[in-house]
Amino acid sequence: MPEQRDRMFRASLRRLVRRGAWGNAAKLLEKSHPVDIAEVLDRLTETDRKAVFHLIASDEVRAEVLALLEFAEGADLIGGLDSDAAARLIGRMPPDDAASVLREIPRDRADQILGAMGESAEDVESLLVYAEDTAGSIMSTEYVALPEDMAVKGAIEHIQSQPPTEASFYVYVTDERSNLVGVLSLRQLIMQSPDKQLRDCMVANPIRATTDTDQEEVARLVARYDLLALPVVDAANRLLGVITVDDVIDVLREEATEDILKMAGTTVEEVTQPNPLRGAWIRFPWLAASFVGGCLGIALLDRFEGVLATTVQLAFFMPIILGMGGNVASQCAMVVVRGLSTGRIELGSLGPNIARELGTGLILAVGFGAGLASLAVLTGYGPSAFPIVVGLGISASMLIAATLGTLLPLVFSRLGADPAVASGPVVTTTTDILGIAAFFLVAHLLL
Amino acid sequence: MPEQRDRMFRASLRRLVRRGAWGNAAKLLEKSHPVDIAEVLDRLTETDRKAVFHLIASDEVRAEVLALLEFAEGADLIGGLDSDAAARLIGRMPPDDAASVLREIPRDRADQILGAMGESAEDVESLLVYAEDTAGSIMSTEYVALPEDMAVKGAIEHIQSQPPTEASFYVYVTDERSNLVGVLSLRQLIMQSPDKQLRDCMVANPIRATTDTDQEEVARLVARYDLLALPVVDAANRLLGVITVDDVIDVLREEATEDILKMAGTTVEEVTQPNPLRGAWIRFPWLAASFVGGCLGIALLDRFEGVLATTVQLAFFMPIILGMGGNVASQCAMVVVRGLSTGRIELGSLGPNIARELGTGLILAVGFGAGLASLAVLTGYGPSAFPIVVGLGISASMLIAATLGTLLPLVFSRLGADPAVASGPVVTTTTDILGIAAFFLVAHLLL
Repeated sequence: MPEQRDRMFRASLRRLVRRGAWGNAAKLLEKSHPVDIAEVLDRLTETDRKAVFHLIASDEVRAEVLALLEFAEGADLIGGLDSDAAARLIGRMPPDDAASVLREIPRDRADQILGAMGESAEDVESLLVYAEDTAGSIMSTEYVALPEDMAVKGAIEHIQSQPPTEASFYVYVTDERSNLVGVLSLRQLIMQSPDKQLRDCMVANPIRATTDTDQEEVARLVARYDLLALPVVDAANRLLGVITVDDVIDVLREEATEDILKMAGTTVEEVTQPNPLRGAWIRFPWLAASFVGGCLGIALLDRFEGVLATTVQLAFFMPIILGMGGNVASQCAMVVVRGLSTGRIELGSLGPNIARELGTGLILAVGFGAGLASLAVLTGYGPSAFPIVVGLGISASMLIAATLGTLLPLVFSRLGADPAVASGPVVTTTTDILGIAAFFLVAHLLL
Repeated sequence: MPEQRDRMFRASLRRLVRRGAWGNAAKLLEKSHPVDIAEVLDRLTETDRKAVFHLIASDEVRAEVLALLEFAEGADLIGGLDSDAAARLIGRMPPDDAASVLREIPRDRADQILGAMGESAEDVESLLVYAEDTAGSIMSTEYVALPEDMAVKGAIEHIQSQPPTEASFYVYVTDERSNLVGVLSLRQLIMQSPDKQLRDCMVANPIRATTDTDQEEVARLVARYDLLALPVVDAANRLLGVITVDDVIDVLREEATEDILKMAGTTVEEVTQPNPLRGAWIRFPWLAASFVGGCLGIALLDRFEGVLATTVQLAFFMPIILGMGGNVASQCAMVVVRGLSTGRIELGSLGPNIARELGTGLILAVGFGAGLASLAVLTGYGPSAFPIVVGLGISASMLIAATLGTLLPLVFSRLGADPAVASGPVVTTTTDILGIAAFFLVAHLLL
């Protein structure tokens, strides 16, 4: 099994690094595939990663490893080199990966590296104009485009004469103004009679993205139409690049990870770096927001000191009321966030989704409210209205939670903000405060 | 933009369905691409989905739509047909998709359909023996495999004579015992001189999966080596099928969604069905577990009634202590769960990851503990030890949260259970109880 082999390779390399056996580590690296080296680097600490990277002898392999790493990690490794050495590596990388790494480097440093690259910087520079996370920023400029009046025979000969590129399983067909007019798979091409013109056998009007299409939309198109590559055009329909399915897979993994971590109020950067102090700093904002929310809770409960002092058992029910509200809120929020990002929920037709979430919330609120009230009867706590108070309290808290959990991500999304952010600490903190307020308001009125 | 066109198509179809204009809806469907029809069906209610599906005139298009839908949805639609009609559709689907749909249908009903298919059921039946979520269950049996002594020219002619299949960009090379020995891309094939034998130009020993490889591992291999397809062999290395990259994309999306929803204590089934009562039923178990946890909390606080009655202000700090603990626990848990599922965290080398999470947790616990104690000094609540009690209380709760959030998913994973499940309600409920216990224990001792 390849998995087991990997694990052994990583274990050996790690052992050599730990022992400082640099000579043996270098020898092991020389025999390894760049993919495997990248996998190991990805899991080392920052210091070890730099040390191992510098052990790789060939510029070729280093460039390949850089293209395989997360771009921020690649930028980190490049950061330790002088401009000439950096330029040599960047120049050997596919332009799209090179541009992505340079985006993560401070602007003036990136300019130095581009300067040191001379003319070969052109391809990379032309990609740097596109905003992050757009089709333009992840497209490759290496693809096969041929004129529509070329014959099939000529097309095959052209492909045979070219070095292999990432996207060589499709041939794109352009008209005299370089406009994208059709596509042919290599397989379709070899099925045609040699003298036919490409325009007569191509699939016309292929699915495409423009340079400013969001990368999530790119992923959706590729997934939906089972494409191996998606052509990218400018506003005038001129073919500028191609996004291959392997980049789409990277986008999908990245976006899913981002969604999950954002919901927890943390980021990918935190996970990829080993310093706990920086980790704490990254998490601090969301926890601080939650802390401020908690302080509002203290102020709120202060106003209800009277009822709490006369019926101290109310406090016993705070954890269950807060906990159930929190769980309901995250369930609703995650369903909505994931629905929005997979496209199952559309902002244009929210009615049935909202109705279903709130319906589910209502059923659960009534059920658990009745349950908690019955339990309170058994405990015999407080005056006779006590069971009704805790029953209504938990129901109110769960209903508030379902409403906020469903609506806040939708509101964020409508405002153009990321709904994943809303479904984490924002939803739970707001739910906590409103839930407690509802509980003690009921207590204040009935006790 | 294709996105806009889709949205208009979906809106029109929905309008026609709502108005009951079945004739016009059928006409609109006739002009539509199966991919677009599947997208719309996916977003309709169960009843509307059935109605629209039955409007599709051609069996061809119906079968294509079925292959594109989620398998559970497809099974639902097939459920409404008699065995002969179902067999006609299943027989037109690619065998791997057909098998996946049949897996979602009650066993005896599936056997009836297979019976009605006659001999053509063989391909599907041979796939049904593989367990769900394994390479065997998602592989396609349509691929090009050629003997190693065939000449390049013969190989190209063979491809030209075959109907196009999903995986036609790779040619797999087998020896006389049908063992997989090599692979060639179509592009590499047409670069070779026509008389060379395949064994002399193939890439030997290609990356492969066995039928029982987990589908997540399949996705990882394809993503890692940028493959367009992965061959699947049995224990004796006989080539049995191929998994194409479009199926891998489906796996990745599905697994990410599952992870997210599981963490929230809900499931994909809930999201795909519109009945709130069934939704409530699916969520019930996790909420019930959390409810039982909350009841333990009530019993626990009951033991501390004395200290609560003398210093009722302790109750004011319960929401902030529970809330901060909950947030820290989910942050740690999500980082660990996602790390495990992307392979960044390996069970074999946990030390640095655990150390980092706990280090971050400790820093945050001390910082917010000091913050809350200072705040309590300002409020002037309770006796002089009060600020120390709440400061220690929140620190203890956050530390417990970081420890449980980091370790519980790892323990679950080590035990072979799904770590995503642990990071939802299990972690937050356990954290709640232990956090409150720690807080009131401190209060009991110091006040």
